[in-house]
Amino acid sequence: MGYSRTVTRPISLEIQKELPGSLARAGLLHTPHGDIKTPAFVAVATKATTKGLGTFMYEDMGIQTIIANAYHLYLTPGEKIVEKAGGVGKFMAFDGPTMTDSGGFQVFSLGVGFGKQVSKIAAEDKPQVAAVAVYSEESTTEHGKLAIVDDDGVSFTSHHDGSLHRFTPERSIEIQHALGADIIFAFDEFIAPTEPHAEQKDSMERTHRWAKRSLAAHRQNLDANARQGIYGIVQGGRYEDLRMESAHTLAEMDFDGYGIGGSFNKNDILGILEKVNAVLPKEKPRHLLGIGEPEDVFIGVAAGIDTFDCVLPTRNGRNATVFTYDGKLNLENAECTEDQRPIDPDCDCFVCKKYSRSYIRHLFKSGEMLGGILASAHNMRFLTRLTENIRDSILEGRFEKYRDAFLARYL
Amino acid sequence: MGYSRTVTRPISLEIQKELPGSLARAGLLHTPHGDIKTPAFVAVATKATTKGLGTFMYEDMGIQTIIANAYHLYLTPGEKIVEKAGGVGKFMAFDGPTMTDSGGFQVFSLGVGFGKQVSKIAAEDKPQVAAVAVYSEESTTEHGKLAIVDDDGVSFTSHHDGSLHRFTPERSIEIQHALGADIIFAFDEFIAPTEPHAEQKDSMERTHRWAKRSLAAHRQNLDANARQGIYGIVQGGRYEDLRMESAHTLAEMDFDGYGIGGSFNKNDILGILEKVNAVLPKEKPRHLLGIGEPEDVFIGVAAGIDTFDCVLPTRNGRNATVFTYDGKLNLENAECTEDQRPIDPDCDCFVCKKYSRSYIRHLFKSGEMLGGILASAHNMRFLTRLTENIRDSILEGRFEKYRDAFLARYL
Repeated sequence: MGYSRTVTRPISLEIQKELPGSLARAGLLHTPHGDIKTPAFVAVATKATTKGLGTFMYEDMGIQTIIANAYHLYLTPGEKIVEKAGGVGKFMAFDGPTMTDSGGFQVFSLGVGFGKQVSKIAAEDKPQVAAVAVYSEESTTEHGKLAIVDDDGVSFTSHHDGSLHRFTPERSIEIQHALGADIIFAFDEFIAPTEPHAEQKDSMERTHRWAKRSLAAHRQNLDANARQGIYGIVQGGRYEDLRMESAHTLAEMDFDGYGIGGSFNKNDILGILEKVNAVLPKEKPRHLLGIGEPEDVFIGVAAGIDTFDCVLPTRNGRNATVFTYDGKLNLENAECTEDQRPIDPDCDCFVCKKYSRSYIRHLFKSGEMLGGILASAHNMRFLTRLTENIRDSILEGRFEKYRDAFLARYL
Repeated sequence: MGYSRTVTRPISLEIQKELPGSLARAGLLHTPHGDIKTPAFVAVATKATTKGLGTFMYEDMGIQTIIANAYHLYLTPGEKIVEKAGGVGKFMAFDGPTMTDSGGFQVFSLGVGFGKQVSKIAAEDKPQVAAVAVYSEESTTEHGKLAIVDDDGVSFTSHHDGSLHRFTPERSIEIQHALGADIIFAFDEFIAPTEPHAEQKDSMERTHRWAKRSLAAHRQNLDANARQGIYGIVQGGRYEDLRMESAHTLAEMDFDGYGIGGSFNKNDILGILEKVNAVLPKEKPRHLLGIGEPEDVFIGVAAGIDTFDCVLPTRNGRNATVFTYDGKLNLENAECTEDQRPIDPDCDCFVCKKYSRSYIRHLFKSGEMLGGILASAHNMRFLTRLTENIRDSILEGRFEKYRDAFLARYL
C-alpha cells in the first residue's frame, strides 16, 4: 500500500508481579481488543459459541477472552462468512480479546487423543505419511475417514459430510487471518501420546518446520501482522528431552507468545511445564492448551502459565457436574432433591444468586436444557473467579497460602 | 385457626379502558405478586422453566407472568418439593405473578388433541368410562398406556415410568395449592375435537361438575383461597350451543376468572369467542389457553380476552423459526447465510441488539443449543411486545388501526 507501518506488537505481556522462587506471575496481556488480566481462564468457543452460553451472559460470568477453532469455523460457516461479519469477535457479538487455535489438534488426532486406535499407512514414496482416524470432538461416532499427512500439510475429510479438504501451515494462517482473532496459533502436528520416542521426535520436528512456515506466513501479511499476534506451540509428547528441544527451538523463533500442547495426557506434561517455561522467553505470554481442573491450574500458574483454556466448565455442566469450593458435586444426586441452597453458597455467580440445587436438579431430571445452561454458567464463573483469586493472591504475594487453603478444602 | 379473614379477592381485574363497539379492553390484573398489564402474553413454563430461557432473562424479554403445569410438576419433582421451595415462583426464581394449569389437558388428551387415535372402552357398569391414549407433550413416542375416566376422576399412567396415578378435581386443586401459583385452574375433562356432539356434551357436563368440585375444594382451603384465585374453564368443543351452555353455566359459578379451552382446534373456537365472552362476567379476567399466533392474538383481544399462553415462541424458536414484523422467517434458509442484520431490525430484544441472522443460522447449522436459546428469546419478546403494543393501542383508542397496520405487514 506504500505506507510505512509501526512495528509495535499487537500482543504484549506486561508483567505486574513475580514471585520469588517461582515462575508464577500476574500481568496484563495487551491486545487490540483490550487487556486480559492474567492468570486468566479462556472460555472455549470452538464454533464461535461457548456451549449453551451466549456472549450476553459473559460479563456476569467474568469471561475476559475466548478461544475459537480454525478447523471448525473453516468448515462451518466458512472463514469468509466470519470475515464478512468483522471477525470472530463481532460474529459472536463479543467485544473482548479473542484467540483461534490453528485446527491442528482437530485435523489430526481427536481420535488419538482420546484413546482411539491409530492406524498407520506406510506410503510407498513418503515414509513420513501417517493416517489417523478423524472425528468430531462433539460426536460419539467415528466416521472412519482418514487424514493423510505429508511434510507439506494434511489432507482430511470433513466430519460433517466426508468432503475432502487440505490444510497447510500457510492455509491455517490464512484462515486465522480471515477469522481475525487477536491471538492466533501456529499450525502443529499432533500424534497420540502413546506413540514411541522416534515417532514423537519426527512429529515434533515437523511441528517445528510448520511453526517456521506459520510464522513466516503471518509476518508476510503486514495487515494481519499489525492486528494479530501469533503463538508457537511446544510439543514433544511425554518425553522431557523432546519437550526441552521443542522449547529451545521455538524460543528462538520470533513468536509473540507460546502455547503448550498435549492436554490429552496432562499428568505427563505438568511435570515438565516448569522446565519448558524456564526456557521460553520470560517476557512473552504462555498459554496452556486444554487444561482446566482447578488443581492443575495451580500447578500451571506456579510453573509460569499465564492463560488456560478447557472445555471442562461446559462439558461438566451439561452432565450436571458442578464445581464447588468443597469439590465437585453431581446435581442429579438424590441428596440435592430438596436442597434449597445454591450450587455453592460462596459463589458470586448469577446462578448461585438465584437458583437452588433442588431446582437445577429438577431441570436435569426433567431433561430441560436450562439445567445444562445454568450448571455451565456456574462452572465457567467458578474457573474465571479461581484465576481472578489466584491473580489477586500473586499481586498480594500470598499465592502459595491461597493455593494451599483452596486445595485443602477442594480436594 | 379461629381468626377471621377478609374476603378481599387475591385476583381482580381493573379495567382501564374499553373500546366502543368491541369487547377489547386494557386493564391491570392484580395478583399477590404484582399487576399484570393486560392484554398480556403468558410465557409457558410447563415444568417450571420456559424451555431454554432462564428467569434471569425474563426482564429483558418483558415476561410479566408464566403458566406452569400441575400434571408435570406433580410427577417431577413432586408438588411437595415445589411447596418446600416456597411455591412455583420461588422454585424457578421468578418474583412475578404465576399461574398453574390443572393438568386436565395433559392427563387426558394430549394424544387426542394432536390427532392420535382415541380408543373407547365401554365399561360394564360405568357407561361414562372412556379411555384415551396419554403421552408426553414433549415425547414423540406414545407409550400406549391408558387413562381411565370415571365421574369421580381419572386414573392414568405416568409418561415417565408407567406408574399408576389418580387425579380428581380435589386432588388437582390440592396439588395446585402446594404449587402456590397466584392463579390456578379448575380440573377439566378434555376430549378430541373430532368427537361428535353427544360425547362433547357428556364431557362438557362432566367438566361442569368438576368445575363445581374444584371451586368448592379451593374455597374450603381458607389459606389458599386468600392467596390464590381460581379460574373455571369453558369447554364445549366446536359446538356453539355447547360453548354457550358452558359459558352460562360457569358464569354462574363464583370463579375469579375464566379460561377458555380448546387450543387444539383454534379455528373453531375463535369464531365463538366473542359470544362466549359476552356471557362471562365482564369484570372478571379471561384467559385463552394455548393460542399465540399474532393474528389470533388480535382476534382474541377484539373478542375480550385479557391473557394468552402458548408454546409457540419456544417451540418455533427451537426449530429456527422466528417472528418478524414482516412475517415468519426460517433462519436455516440459505438467504440468511451472510445476512448481517438482526432477526428483526425493528425489534427491541437483546438478541436483536447483539446478534446477526448469519450468526444464529450458523449456530443452528452447527447444532449449537445457543441457536434455539436466542431464537426462543427473540420470539418470546416478539409476543410480549405485541401484547404491549396492543395494550397501548387500546389505551390510546387506536386498536383497530394498529391491528390493520400490523397485519398488513405481517401476513
